[in-house]
Amino acid sequence: MSYLNQIINGITPVSRDTAVKTQKHLDNLLKPIGSLGKLEEIAVRISAITGKVTNELKKKCVLVFAADNGICAEGVSGAPTTVTVTQFLNMTKGLAGINVLSKQAGADIFLVDIGVNGDLPYDKIINKKIRRGTGNILYEPAMTREEAIKALETGIELVQDLKAKNYQVIGTGEMGIGNTSTSAAVIMSLTGRPADEIVGMGTGMTEEGYRHKKEVIEAAVDRRKPNPDDPIDVLSKVGGLDLAGMAGVFLGCAYYKIPVVIDGVISIAAAFLAARLNPLTVQYMIPSHLSAEPGYAVVAQELGLNPYLLLDMRLGEGSGCPLAFYLIDCALAIGREMGTFEQGNIDGSVLMDIRSSTRPNF
Amino acid sequence: MSYLNQIINGITPVSRDTAVKTQKHLDNLLKPIGSLGKLEEIAVRISAITGKVTNELKKKCVLVFAADNGICAEGVSGAPTTVTVTQFLNMTKGLAGINVLSKQAGADIFLVDIGVNGDLPYDKIINKKIRRGTGNILYEPAMTREEAIKALETGIELVQDLKAKNYQVIGTGEMGIGNTSTSAAVIMSLTGRPADEIVGMGTGMTEEGYRHKKEVIEAAVDRRKPNPDDPIDVLSKVGGLDLAGMAGVFLGCAYYKIPVVIDGVISIAAAFLAARLNPLTVQYMIPSHLSAEPGYAVVAQELGLNPYLLLDMRLGEGSGCPLAFYLIDCALAIGREMGTFEQGNIDGSVLMDIRSSTRPNF
Repeated sequence: MSYLNQIINGITPVSRDTAVKTQKHLDNLLKPIGSLGKLEEIAVRISAITGKVTNELKKKCVLVFAADNGICAEGVSGAPTTVTVTQFLNMTKGLAGINVLSKQAGADIFLVDIGVNGDLPYDKIINKKIRRGTGNILYEPAMTREEAIKALETGIELVQDLKAKNYQVIGTGEMGIGNTSTSAAVIMSLTGRPADEIVGMGTGMTEEGYRHKKEVIEAAVDRRKPNPDDPIDVLSKVGGLDLAGMAGVFLGCAYYKIPVVIDGVISIAAAFLAARLNPLTVQYMIPSHLSAEPGYAVVAQELGLNPYLLLDMRLGEGSGCPLAFYLIDCALAIGREMGTFEQGNIDGSVLMDIRSSTRPNF
Repeated sequence: MSYLNQIINGITPVSRDTAVKTQKHLDNLLKPIGSLGKLEEIAVRISAITGKVTNELKKKCVLVFAADNGICAEGVSGAPTTVTVTQFLNMTKGLAGINVLSKQAGADIFLVDIGVNGDLPYDKIINKKIRRGTGNILYEPAMTREEAIKALETGIELVQDLKAKNYQVIGTGEMGIGNTSTSAAVIMSLTGRPADEIVGMGTGMTEEGYRHKKEVIEAAVDRRKPNPDDPIDVLSKVGGLDLAGMAGVFLGCAYYKIPVVIDGVISIAAAFLAARLNPLTVQYMIPSHLSAEPGYAVVAQELGLNPYLLLDMRLGEGSGCPLAFYLIDCALAIGREMGTFEQGNIDGSVLMDIRSSTRPNF
């Protein structure tokens, strides 16, 4: 069995038992049952992953995968392809949005070149280049099946390294001009939905450019004919190397039982690929914000995940992840630090009044 | 002119000029225009309040007003009135949700007894008691007009004190069994909407209890006949002392130019009263989460505010405020720390491609 299949088949469910114990613990804290809503949901989800009722995830990081996309030759992006490298280098200098937001959350950033079209011999960039950009999916597959598998395995191996370094929660980010197009192509291929429902404005363009982008992506999917039942076929024919690396991270995090945070549409497209390879991966995913790209909500619904932040963000880079890290910190602090009904001198009969009947109504 | 009127009439608009300068600054940072969405909106809003393009709001606090409500005699809450005092005392011990979340955000908490039905001689509780609980609004006004004015002025004076202590952002919280009922009564009075659209489950109750709660509140509003054009009349006839104190905080923050954060339905009902006393107050308000209580969304729309967090929270206490403090910190860090296009070596012509055409589409 290949390394990839070994990982995919080795993923086990989260601990249902710990989830139940954690909800019981939260229900005994000084608040009406369920009144901390999604913060409680996050705490339960993390507990089910770690197998512990109370948790603290101190060591956090965002993995940013950079790659170029051949489809850019068709003018699908408002930004030139050189911006992939330039902005990735800006991340090494701490100038990008993801740097600022990660610093706020106390999270490290790891920058991974998984397919940039150029050499990046910088200490701060991890060289995992599979190839120099993908093929133009309007005329050829993005990559070979072997390359897609290698990129997925790269993502898994990076998680293995981070696990060894005791990272406890991982965010997924990217930098790659053209990757809202490849993400849309992947989502369209896996759902069968038309470009009109999935393709967004990306980095920004005119109305005419937007119509063109939709036509190009629809044509690429039509021509490449990816098999919707074979996620690796979809990834290799119309995906991207950043998507592949990120999908590998989702698989690796599920395998190594590390909570993994979804950013925007590119990140959730990668999560979608991982979920199609093994649906158990979804149990390890934490959403962050509702991306302004229309494909996001479609996939979130498919995965049964509801984002917590309504910020109209569409920056990418993994920028939603550090915001979710803070919500996770808060959710876990609730479980660790809030007083119980007993400590708070609220007596049992009162407690039953508060607790007995609300849940079904919400 | 009374102190209250002096404050209400002394509120001036935020700096439109600084808002424009700040958006220009944000538009020159290394990202597609507007791609940080609401984080940019928050940064602009804070700038307009402080009059400075870049900001850091280090000193934060949540003001928690506790008060009892006479309407509880009608069985409108799933929790007994004793919980107001018990849970307020739990806050002095650091056991409540607001304690845990404020600690995460590095925010202080100030506990204000503005109308608890009992004596609370504790160092950690600021005694600003106007009266021992309100009247039962089904049979009598909640308080006199003079008491309402005094409670509003108390909120303003507390802001004056916090300003003197250099607090830079203030959150609004409360503890008072029955206060989702008084908040609903205020919102119904100010909007003319029926109980079915405004009243929520509050702390929790049976379906039958919920129907009863709606009937009681509708009857109370019918009988008290508060004048919708006179917010102080509404407040005194069907409101609460916590609502009055919080409304005073919104007025005070606008007067002293301090950003003020809205928590859930009680907090936004108070914000609504302040906005009706002077619409300029809205320019100083920052929403946090979308409360599960139905009245919240109605008022948020009236005020033109969109909450940033979708967490199904319904705890109260001010618990949404520390979460918003973190988003504010992030928004302001973006403005202070991100690199400019010039620093990031992205050239002018490219920059125009990215920047020129996106905004109108979002």
